[in-house]
This record gives sequence, C-alpha cells and structure tokens, in this order.
Amino acid sequence: MNIVLLSGGSGRRLWPLSNDIRSKQFIKIFETADGGYESMVQRVYRQIKTVDAGASITIATSKTQVSAIHNQLGDGVGISVEPCRRDTFPAIALATAYLHDVQKIGEDEPVVVCPVDPYVEDDYFQMLKRLSEQAESGEANLVLMGIEPTYPSEKYGYILPESTQPISSVHTFREKPDAETAKGYIARGALWNGGVFAYRLGYVLRKARELLGSCDYDDLFDRYEALPKISFDYAVAEAEPKIQVLRFGGQWKDLGTWNTLTEAMSTPTIGEAMLSSSCENVHVVNELNVPIVCMGLRDVVVSASPEGILVSDKELSSGIKPMVDAIRQQIMFAEKSWGSFRVLDVGADSLTIKVTLRPGHAMNYHSHEKRDEIWNVISGEGIVTVDGMVQPVTVGDVITMQAGCRHTVEAITELQLIEVQLGKDISVHDKQKYALEG
Amino acid sequence: MNIVLLSGGSGRRLWPLSNDIRSKQFIKIFETADGGYESMVQRVYRQIKTVDAGASITIATSKTQVSAIHNQLGDGVGISVEPCRRDTFPAIALATAYLHDVQKIGEDEPVVVCPVDPYVEDDYFQMLKRLSEQAESGEANLVLMGIEPTYPSEKYGYILPESTQPISSVHTFREKPDAETAKGYIARGALWNGGVFAYRLGYVLRKARELLGSCDYDDLFDRYEALPKISFDYAVAEAEPKIQVLRFGGQWKDLGTWNTLTEAMSTPTIGEAMLSSSCENVHVVNELNVPIVCMGLRDVVVSASPEGILVSDKELSSGIKPMVDAIRQQIMFAEKSWGSFRVLDVGADSLTIKVTLRPGHAMNYHSHEKRDEIWNVISGEGIVTVDGMVQPVTVGDVITMQAGCRHTVEAITELQLIEVQLGKDISVHDKQKYALEG
Repeated sequence: MNIVLLSGGSGRRLWPLSNDIRSKQFIKIFETADGGYESMVQRVYRQIKTVDAGASITIATSKTQVSAIHNQLGDGVGISVEPCRRDTFPAIALATAYLHDVQKIGEDEPVVVCPVDPYVEDDYFQMLKRLSEQAESGEANLVLMGIEPTYPSEKYGYILPESTQPISSVHTFREKPDAETAKGYIARGALWNGGVFAYRLGYVLRKARELLGSCDYDDLFDRYEALPKISFDYAVAEAEPKIQVLRFGGQWKDLGTWNTLTEAMSTPTIGEAMLSSSCENVHVVNELNVPIVCMGLRDVVVSASPEGILVSDKELSSGIKPMVDAIRQQIMFAEKSWGSFRVLDVGADSLTIKVTLRPGHAMNYHSHEKRDEIWNVISGEGIVTVDGMVQPVTVGDVITMQAGCRHTVEAITELQLIEVQLGKDISVHDKQKYALEG
Repeated sequence: MNIVLLSGGSGRRLWPLSNDIRSKQFIKIFETADGGYESMVQRVYRQIKTVDAGASITIATSKTQVSAIHNQLGDGVGISVEPCRRDTFPAIALATAYLHDVQKIGEDEPVVVCPVDPYVEDDYFQMLKRLSEQAESGEANLVLMGIEPTYPSEKYGYILPESTQPISSVHTFREKPDAETAKGYIARGALWNGGVFAYRLGYVLRKARELLGSCDYDDLFDRYEALPKISFDYAVAEAEPKIQVLRFGGQWKDLGTWNTLTEAMSTPTIGEAMLSSSCENVHVVNELNVPIVCMGLRDVVVSASPEGILVSDKELSSGIKPMVDAIRQQIMFAEKSWGSFRVLDVGADSLTIKVTLRPGHAMNYHSHEKRDEIWNVISGEGIVTVDGMVQPVTVGDVITMQAGCRHTVEAITELQLIEVQLGKDISVHDKQKYALEG
C-alpha cells in the first residue's frame, strides 16, 4: 500500500502542548505497551506497519515539521515538503508527483490519502487497504471512505451514497450542516467525510496537469507559492462522476480539543502529577519536571509545558483559541533537525537555553551579529568548530564565542549543552548561516 | 513600643509557595500602594511603623529565616535567633533576654509579643499600643489580647473574662473546643486567644530564671537545645493570677490556608495569568515566567512556583498537607543571606542554577568534594576569589572551578550568574567552608 499522510498545520487548540511551531500530532500522549508514550504520528505510523508491514508511507507537510517527523519516526520515512501552505489539492498533487518522480511509483499503482491524526484502531487501516484495492480495480477514479455517523455533527462534511451497500457510488456531497439538517442527512443514510480516499496515481497526475498546468514534481515545487488555494474535495471529488464510497463503521475519533484528547488517555495523568481522591474526571498532562497537585476538581484538564499552564473545564476547553492568541511570548521549546532546545532563563540582556543534539547530528555553521555565546558541555561528546578551528569537546568543556564568530557543534554521542547568550535585543532572527569549510 | 514578632516555622499548607525552607510569611502576595507586592512580614512591619514610628521591633525566629528577613526588611531589624525549635516559652524567654542583654532595654519597660502573620488593619496595632501601656501600668503581670469571635471556631483557644468590660481580669482559659462547646463559651462572653500579650520585661526574666534556671541571654542561647519544650500559655499565662485581657473587635484573620489567603488578595491574579469570563471566584498566584490560562473554573485556586503547581478547590485546599508531604524533591528556589538561587535544569550528572547576589554581599568561601562548577556571569559586576586568586568579573566572564578548589564571589552591583555544576551525586551537603584569606 502507498499511503500519503497529510500532516496539517500548527495550532493553539491544544496549547500549551501545541503552539505556533509544535503541532498536536507530535504530542506524546498515548501509552505504549512498554510503558512509554507515543504521539499521534507515531501511533498511526505503527498501526499502518502492523496492518501492512510493506506499506510505503509518505508524509505531506510543511518544512517546519520535518525535524519533528525525523525525530519521531526516524530518517527512513518519505516526506513531501510543501514550500508553503496551500490548500489540500496542491498538497496532494505535489505528494503524488513526489511518489511518481522521486519514489518511482507507477501510474497504475493505487495511492491512499489520509490525515495523519485519526484516533482509530487497526480496523481503520484494514479499511485503507480495501480502499487501495478498490481504487486499483479501476471501477471508479476515486474511492472515498465514508464514516458511519454516531451523532448529527456540525463539524464534518457529509457524503450521500447511492445505496446502503458496503461499496456504493456517491450520490452527492454536502458541506458542514447545522445539527437539524445533519439529522435529515443521517436519516437518508449519509456518511461523514473524513478526508480519506484512494486513487490510481496517474489520475491525480492528470488532474494536476489539467488544474495546475503541470504534474512534474520539480516544477510544482518551484511554482508552489503561485499555485491556486483549492481543496481536493472542491477541485476533484465533487466534480468526479466515477466515484465510490466505502462504508466504515469502526471507531473513529478526531482528537482536536483537550476534551476529546483526554478521552483517549489510558491513564488520568502523564508526567509528575497527584490527584486527590476528591478529584473526578480530571486529566493532567505535565511536561515540566515539577509536580502538579490537584484537589477537589471535577471535569478539568490541567496541562503544563515550557510554554505555559492551562487549567480548564473540559467542555469549555474548545474555546481556548482567542485566549492563547492574546499571548505573545518567546518560543520556550523547539525540535530542530539536530535535536531540540529549551529556554531555561530569560534575562534582561541574556538568554540561557539547554541544547540537546542527537548523535551524528550538527547545527548549521552560523554566527550572530548582536550576541556572544558560551557553551557549557554537561553531557556527551562532540566536535566543535569555531572560525574554522576544530576541537573535540566533552563534559566540563566551555567554549566562548564572540559576536560575529562562526560556530557549530556536532554530536558524537547524545550531547547536551547549557548555552548562555549575551547581548542586547537577542533574537532567533539574528543568525547568518555558512557552508562549513573543509 | 518594644515588640517581639514570633516568626513561626516553615510549612507546606501554602505549597508550592511555602515549603520546607520557605515560610508563608515571606510570600509576596499583598498589593502595595505603588503597584508592587509585599509579604505578610513586610506588611506587618510597615503597619507597626505607621502606628508607632519609634517602635523597636525584634523578630524571634530560627536561623533558616534570617536571610529572608534581612532580604525583606533590610539589615536594621533586630533578630533573636533560636538555635533550634523549642516551644513558645523558651523562644519568648530568649527574645526577652535578648532585649535586655543585647538591646539594653530596662526591666520596667513593657514588651508586646505577637505572631508575625496576622492579617489585620491598623486598629490592631493601636490595640498593641494599648496593651503595652496597660502592661506598663503594672495593674497586672500579663495583659492578653482577646479577639471577639465571629463564629464558633474549633481552631483557637478561648479566654473567659471576668466581665464584658474593654479591660477585664481573666477568669479562665479553655483549650480548642468542638463547635458545640465553642458556642457555649461564646454565649458566656469568651474571646479567642490570638497569642498576643504584653508584660514588663523583668516579669519574663524572673519566669525564665524560675523555669529555665537562667535569664542570661548567652546562657539561654548556649543551652537552648536542652531547654524544655513548653508553651508560654501553659508555663506562664495559665498559672498567672494577676492577668488581664483587652477586648479587640476589629478585623483579624489568620491566613493559614489557600482559602483564607486568597480572600485577602486585592486582585484575582498575581503574576502572568488569564482568566476566561466563565471563571468564578478563581485566584491565581504565579511565580513562574510563563502564563497560566484558566477557563470555566469555579472556586479554584491555582498557584505555580519553581517547586510545583497546585490546582485546588478553595475549601478543600486546607487538606493539602498529606498530599505534598508525599513529594520529595530537590529544593528549586531559596533565599540566602547573599541573595537567592533558582534551579534551572536537573541533569543526570549536572545541575544548572541561576544565582543572584545582592550588591555588597558574598557567598561563603567554600569548596565541593564531588563536583566541578562553572560560573557564567550574565549581569552585574563582582570580585571572584578562587584558591586565593582575586579577580574582577563582569558580563561574559567564565570561571571554571575543579572539585576541591576554594571559591567565592562578591557582588559589587547586583550580580547574576548561571552556575553549571558537574559531577556524580550532586548534593547541597557537599560543601566545605573556609575563612577567606587576606
């Protein structure tokens, strides 16, 4: 099975764990068999591999997520990087061209497209295989998954099938309705449109040529910013007469709010937390290294990260966006291609961060105009380059770098540094990159 | 007026702001006229000075609070340091001997004793003056303040006066009763015993000689650990026939729990916090530098400090002790005689802290057996001594110190350091102190 996972943008609906640079699909919230935790991306990736060990998985996403994907899934996963955010049709066209031109997948081979973050069981991925097989059969140009509704939701679009058979032609699509209208749809056998579908690769290449003027990967990539913002549903699905829907009746959840996310937690707390016996329906997700104590709460979610602390009634937590949109703050934690950093202290003219580099990885060779930096190595071994001078470093070594000096560090083993930045107007934008000499 | 403020022990009932080394009276929670915040100790000190600018204030406390007292009240305040914790009679005897032997106060002068943390208005301190004057008159050996009860509390002892006059002889004392018994006391005109009283200095010196075998300050200090653990009420007040009570009907609150403490806050939030309009009766005290967002909560207190995060129903917050007693953790913040430190990062074999030194202050000259240290100066100017070598330091300077090397730093201006500690089994107990040479 060739599968394209659409990894959507960042958002603040799960603040403080998600923010401008960290998306909800990377939050490690699901307990694994070995007692650790995995993210939605990791869970879905593992589930696909369980159902189809040979599946070829490609993630369609923006540049900002590449580091997090490699950190969580390793370097083996295929990534189709969108140079900027367009709508779903350009993203799917680019990913399909990537499969064809880069991964050399044939035009007759089926491709399944699916969001990266459904909270589902293995039967969902079995259904993806059937979707793939149905697309390969050529009975229709496009095969959708229709999810049997469990309530008249206003959050999803609806698919009206011709029949109630497991496989049916699509009669028509309906936009997100109000609850009353949704009830009527459901009475007529409508299904939720979960944004999951399959096609033979050549079909979307033809659509790309027709609608975007090209199906060449490099060309689409180069012109990406100029491509029209159109959705796959609007541009392709709703205009396609040869279209089928496969009915799915298994568990399917969209974990987009704290309320739905905490329902999926197998334990009431993740991280250091204590709940008194007087707490009812309370969930805590704590990424800080100090304890959270909860007493006498009911239907509340508490979440703490280096970005901040949320304490909310679960139902009302979906209204978080306007509140956190008012917060303008320093990014306190970020995953990078080489590892991660966390802000420890913000001074008037200083910033202290903890840097963790993955073995074998290095920062860009770079300099800063307006700040000096000091590295204090607290664990691991690595190789530092400062203005072309190369030297090995280990625990206890201190490297001082004046503003303007070019520097990088490569980790041999996992390497941790306390980096002290000193200067006025310290900013992440004050960075000049260079090719490493020699 | 000579006043002795009893500054009680540390406790965890206001965790995470109070803990084993930080007492509630030092939490800065009361808004001042200039928009800043002051602690209970600072508020009481300021109130006394407002009522009696010439008041001589002595704080009776343990060694662990001396730094915090100097940091908050300056170096001018008198402190009677208890070498260890005994009960109130040894503490009051020692403080009284301190007033006599160290501060040279005469035996006929009145002394008022009062807890350091009542939440009261200026009329309370006017009453302390009257208590002092009444003691000076010599009508009785001991003059108590009796607080008019507002409800049949089980938390306080009761004083039964002979009459309902503003000044009356004491008929008898009653231990903390149950609510039903308390109702009966109140019907008979009983008053709460708030632990406030006045006497002529010589009176307690005589009691000390009688009960502790000495009234000499140095002698009491040296033998302090061997003194009996007896309360002033039991040892003195309840045995004294010449005793009066002055009735106080003003506002008097004991801010010992989060519930009562938040009642005294003039704003719902201190520190970075956002409350949604759906919050009712919610208070936030945030000492961290990241925002707390609250949504849809009712009757809840949220408090965050470097030690941890509390989210509690206000009524139930009084049951916090057993919960936080189960927490065994690194002290994350502490006030020292020279300033303060805060833990920024706890690694496997490293600890990173931020050190702030007050101008003119220095650490002890010391060394560590099992760890190296690195100082990164991030603001201010100072003088570092390492193994006898003295050098000035300023922003950007880095000092590395191997295990065993003797070191200290003195602040010229306020000085901030990032201190990186490296070694196995890092502990605050690994410290050897030395006299500074030269």
